[in-house]
Amino acid sequence: MFSKAIRWFGASPPRILLLGFSFIIFVGALLLELPIASTNGESTPFIDALFTSTSATCVTGLTVFDTGSYYSVFGHWVILLLVQTGGIGFMTMATLFALILRRRISLRERLILQESLNQGSIEGLVRLVRKVIFYALAIETVGALLYTVRFMIDMPFGRAVYQGVFHSISIFNNAGFDLSGDAASFAKYSTDLYLNIVSMGLIIFGGFGFIVLADLFEIKSKKKLSLHTKVVLSVSAALILVGAIVIFIFEFTNTRSIGDSGFGHKLLVSFFQSVTSRSGGVSTVDIAELRQATQFFLIILMFIGASPGSTGGGIKTTTFAVLVGAVLAMIRGKEDVVLFRLRLAQERVYKAVTVTLFCIGLVMLGTMILATTENAAFLKILFEVTSAFGTVGLSMGLTENLTSAGKLTIIFMMFVGRLGPLTLTYALGPKAGRPLYRHAEGKIIIG
Amino acid sequence: MFSKAIRWFGASPPRILLLGFSFIIFVGALLLELPIASTNGESTPFIDALFTSTSATCVTGLTVFDTGSYYSVFGHWVILLLVQTGGIGFMTMATLFALILRRRISLRERLILQESLNQGSIEGLVRLVRKVIFYALAIETVGALLYTVRFMIDMPFGRAVYQGVFHSISIFNNAGFDLSGDAASFAKYSTDLYLNIVSMGLIIFGGFGFIVLADLFEIKSKKKLSLHTKVVLSVSAALILVGAIVIFIFEFTNTRSIGDSGFGHKLLVSFFQSVTSRSGGVSTVDIAELRQATQFFLIILMFIGASPGSTGGGIKTTTFAVLVGAVLAMIRGKEDVVLFRLRLAQERVYKAVTVTLFCIGLVMLGTMILATTENAAFLKILFEVTSAFGTVGLSMGLTENLTSAGKLTIIFMMFVGRLGPLTLTYALGPKAGRPLYRHAEGKIIIG
Ligand SMILES: [K+]
Ligand SMILES: [K+]
Repeated sequence: MFSKAIRWFGASPPRILLLGFSFIIFVGALLLELPIASTNGESTPFIDALFTSTSATCVTGLTVFDTGSYYSVFGHWVILLLVQTGGIGFMTMATLFALILRRRISLRERLILQESLNQGSIEGLVRLVRKVIFYALAIETVGALLYTVRFMIDMPFGRAVYQGVFHSISIFNNAGFDLSGDAASFAKYSTDLYLNIVSMGLIIFGGFGFIVLADLFEIKSKKKLSLHTKVVLSVSAALILVGAIVIFIFEFTNTRSIGDSGFGHKLLVSFFQSVTSRSGGVSTVDIAELRQATQFFLIILMFIGASPGSTGGGIKTTTFAVLVGAVLAMIRGKEDVVLFRLRLAQERVYKAVTVTLFCIGLVMLGTMILATTENAAFLKILFEVTSAFGTVGLSMGLTENLTSAGKLTIIFMMFVGRLGPLTLTYALGPKAGRPLYRHAEGKIIIG
Repeated sequence: MFSKAIRWFGASPPRILLLGFSFIIFVGALLLELPIASTNGESTPFIDALFTSTSATCVTGLTVFDTGSYYSVFGHWVILLLVQTGGIGFMTMATLFALILRRRISLRERLILQESLNQGSIEGLVRLVRKVIFYALAIETVGALLYTVRFMIDMPFGRAVYQGVFHSISIFNNAGFDLSGDAASFAKYSTDLYLNIVSMGLIIFGGFGFIVLADLFEIKSKKKLSLHTKVVLSVSAALILVGAIVIFIFEFTNTRSIGDSGFGHKLLVSFFQSVTSRSGGVSTVDIAELRQATQFFLIILMFIGASPGSTGGGIKTTTFAVLVGAVLAMIRGKEDVVLFRLRLAQERVYKAVTVTLFCIGLVMLGTMILATTENAAFLKILFEVTSAFGTVGLSMGLTENLTSAGKLTIIFMMFVGRLGPLTLTYALGPKAGRPLYRHAEGKIIIG
């Protein structure tokens, strides 16, 4: 029976992912429900504990309570552990999936990964996990040190270390949990260049994904970066830049956000919000006070999200690159989608388009449900659902006021937002064999 | 030079479509600008004349003025002529495109069409146009008679005929222009079963498209309907039914719409709004007074729209059917998308997914622009843009208050909404030849 169960798991790796995450979330919810997890010493309603646990494990950062004041130190450590397990667990699994579907990755990426993993061997798997953990911990340690140095100016050493570690783990994992107690989590630091740079750095590195990090740090000659790494780096840079410019222009005269700030401050806030929208989840401005056009633009950034196999969510930068490439090919009347002078297989383009459409469908479904269960402006609902789907954690303020049905919907959106795109891509991967029986071909007219 | 121009046109049929429509719209705008076109005898601002002309030619029905009271009889005839030319012109061109890309249509559809058209011959083309016109005029004549009979109860014979002809042409062409003078165009007839049935019938027949009409009326044995016709009929029926049920449930207790009405009236209003959302554009209830969830649901219906080669817009029922088929195939772990036991070519599925995604991109772009130029609730903007894209003509009341930039954006959306999906599908069609040089294949990770 046991071997049967193992075979059942082995036959479909996404099952391990889905069941593993469900199990972690459930255990997390049980722990967060305990009276010792909250500062008021009372047990938390299960739905709220489940919400926090899902939000932490799926590194989303949407919160029904203020993390800093509601949860005790025990509660904070549970959240941090869930964030770390969820973040690193996902990075490992995503990298593994890419390896299993070997056809998807280039020789170069295989070279990077093969030291870590001899296909099929348990030792290789252990080595891969160890390597992912090493990268994560190394960057988090640097982050914690940099944060602590800054926090020491404001608070006693002990608290500075505590806050440094918490924020470094939370922000590298693109989890968006913070201990600030403000609606706009990092609003009080909005002019602090040092903290802005450290935080943006952690979000960006966390959002690159393991393969890109390994490619960046392990290869001597930068000229020979893999196509995947080149696409991730250039699309990330372009999105951050374009995002910042658009936010800057849209908010320039909005006195409720940065309209009254100086030029440099405006620029810094714009860049930070551009970076954080693509999964980070902490913000230096109150999102609810932005203009409608900016909020809708952030929804698009949140939907695109970070890169594959990273701590961030969304449809991913590479998927977005393929979509842009497909549009450009269409405009030029070309059949092939070309990125960096390399042609993409038609099936990969199809996959990108399908995953995107499926995710749009999910966001629409969630929005539809919340539009019936919640009494709030439509844009606020759309923002909340997209934030949950993209595991971003920004909110226009709806989270705390959600009904129970709304909470369940957002829990569902966080879960499928985190695991859906990867699972779906895997499911769309090359099949082992052709079906024995195929129907005859029919024709209909599209468009 | 003249032969060069002809060759240039012939090389790309979509050009004829785009330039032809642009020309008609421009001429229409010039005519509607004239003082004799309006009841107040003053010349209309060009942007408003352009708006009306585009709305009429693209059979959208969004209006900046009340059609009945602002435009003179001359103005009404210009609008009707634009509607008729735009509607029939599009039906003919769309059918023609399907013929040119012969690979897209089945032997059966070719049999239906080949009497009308020997490929390449001018006579054949004339015969096709004549046949499309015959179908349109026949149905419109029946519609005009049925309307006139009803209107004679309320008004003198002359006016009843005038209104009967106007509404029959407008509504069969899914144009949504009306002479009622109300925001909710047919609100005063919301309990009138006869008028509801006639109007729904005209909208539905107009939305089927020429190939389906020919298939329905010209083939004796109904058992042998083409796959295309089967898909159109079943998807249309399913969408109307599901749409009506959802509207019925969502609005059941909404006293600002049908909450206070009887069961039968509720049902009738739900069915009418379900039908009209998929391109008709006249309504028997004030759309602005519906619940948010209903309005969002109508946005989805408007986006799906009617069937290919019809007077309706949207991504089309067949495209939607392919998307649903693709999702079902994915859930079942099957590679093939199957409709009515016939497998669809992978390239056709890809085309459906791409067209849909491109259209979503267009709606998002339009919404983004209006979010910066207009001062209105987000849902109202999204509704307006989707209505323009889907050539529907329903509105939550934004149209009359649009800024000039907003009007230009909606004009653009009506134009690309009408011509985009067809042109795009054509552009994505099988290419004449492979490119001489192709890039090497590269690999990146999606999702
Ligand atoms: K996050
Ligand atoms: K219409």
